[in-house]
Amino acid sequence: MANSGTGDSVVDRVVRVIAAFPEGVTVLQLSELADRAGLPLSTAHRLVRQLAGHGLLELGSGGSVRLGLRLWELVNRNSPTLALRQAAMPFMEDIQQVLNQNVNLAVLEGWEALFVERLSRRGSVANRAQIAGRMPVHVSSAGLALMANQPPAVQADYVQQFRDPDGKVQPEALRTLLQETAGHGFAQLAGVVDPDTWGIAVPVRDARNRTVAALGVVVPLQEMRLQALVPALQTAARGIGRQLQDPRATPAFHSAESL
Amino acid sequence: MANSGTGDSVVDRVVRVIAAFPEGVTVLQLSELADRAGLPLSTAHRLVRQLAGHGLLELGSGGSVRLGLRLWELVNRNSPTLALRQAAMPFMEDIQQVLNQNVNLAVLEGWEALFVERLSRRGSVANRAQIAGRMPVHVSSAGLALMANQPPAVQADYVQQFRDPDGKVQPEALRTLLQETAGHGFAQLAGVVDPDTWGIAVPVRDARNRTVAALGVVVPLQEMRLQALVPALQTAARGIGRQLQDPRATPAFHSAESL
Repeated sequence: MANSGTGDSVVDRVVRVIAAFPEGVTVLQLSELADRAGLPLSTAHRLVRQLAGHGLLELGSGGSVRLGLRLWELVNRNSPTLALRQAAMPFMEDIQQVLNQNVNLAVLEGWEALFVERLSRRGSVANRAQIAGRMPVHVSSAGLALMANQPPAVQADYVQQFRDPDGKVQPEALRTLLQETAGHGFAQLAGVVDPDTWGIAVPVRDARNRTVAALGVVVPLQEMRLQALVPALQTAARGIGRQLQDPRATPAFHSAESL
Repeated sequence: MANSGTGDSVVDRVVRVIAAFPEGVTVLQLSELADRAGLPLSTAHRLVRQLAGHGLLELGSGGSVRLGLRLWELVNRNSPTLALRQAAMPFMEDIQQVLNQNVNLAVLEGWEALFVERLSRRGSVANRAQIAGRMPVHVSSAGLALMANQPPAVQADYVQQFRDPDGKVQPEALRTLLQETAGHGFAQLAGVVDPDTWGIAVPVRDARNRTVAALGVVVPLQEMRLQALVPALQTAARGIGRQLQDPRATPAFHSAESL
């Protein structure tokens, strides 16, 4: 692989260009893209032209660059979350219609909940869980529902490395919270991210009983139908799990270099 | 850029690896991936390892490869369709609740309709419009609604290059169909793809009055509420267009090498 003077490969540089867009930003000027990718302008220019030739990036007037519709298409039609989202969508729509609130679906990615699908209602309360957005495990009900149902070794690793940037949550309290969450069968967090909302999430298990996702709702703080919300979510989560019946549909993957 | 003996660059090879997954296929064996990408196994292996190191691919047990959750995240959180889908989703949900059928949103990509969002109802009729799926313009109501509202030069180009692989549709008939569609303000196609369904779509226009998307429903053939369906779709499409109020949110982009 062609290495530059600084030792990074062309593949590294391609990745840096694609990853240079900050969350929610769809357009960058070429000069800003080069800056953010840590590449000389001429190198960035050449890579962007090559990637645009394949439709992975698109060039606008005046040197603006955005991710290409072709890249979006390739990634979404072959997405690792495709089977999960397809299995979940009808049940998420049911929950949304019954509860008339925001519904979301998350997977565990590192020590964070990554939201892979979301349905929101007009007039519903704020829901910070954007599609493809992340939240730390300890401040999201989805994150807690996911982590509380991981194998003990994963939970121990997580608690051991945990440091709350706000200094409010101690590792020991987190361990207790995870144990309680697992015992209850659902996670709830009131007003951690947004003081007026309440998040509730339950684990989604596949045919091998592995927790592969969390199904959650975000409701107003004054919503008191916990007795109804949790069984509705758990029923939907079981339905999703049944749809994921083929264990080969969601194999355990990892990004380490294990080939 | 490091060129191989056959003259392709590393960037070309990276693109071929990412694009090697056939539509709807989320997992490939390394050997099949190399085959589909037209690369020697050793080259494919090295590229896959490098891309996996960055999370753009993920490696499973036994040499299986899939697109990485990190790539999905990067592309979706900065997607060129993000603003459009966010603007459209609440209106699509309204349509779905009112009509209780499949609703979809498409953009024009080449001479095809690319479906960027879809809501389906359990018990609703079949809807071939998968998210990130494509359909040729002349066999989809979304495609017709999009093409019929493009500038005359674009439509002329399209009709001129048009060849129906089935030999059923002549270019002149297509030209007439596009004119009628533009005149009616909506597109309808009965039973072209699926004999038991009917597709209806209307254009979504941005603040500059450019048709940037098509909003459509797929309903059973015996559904006769055309008088109600079309105004409901048109109302929703206007709502979406109003949400896209900032013309800079959807600039005219192209993938040609114009930098």
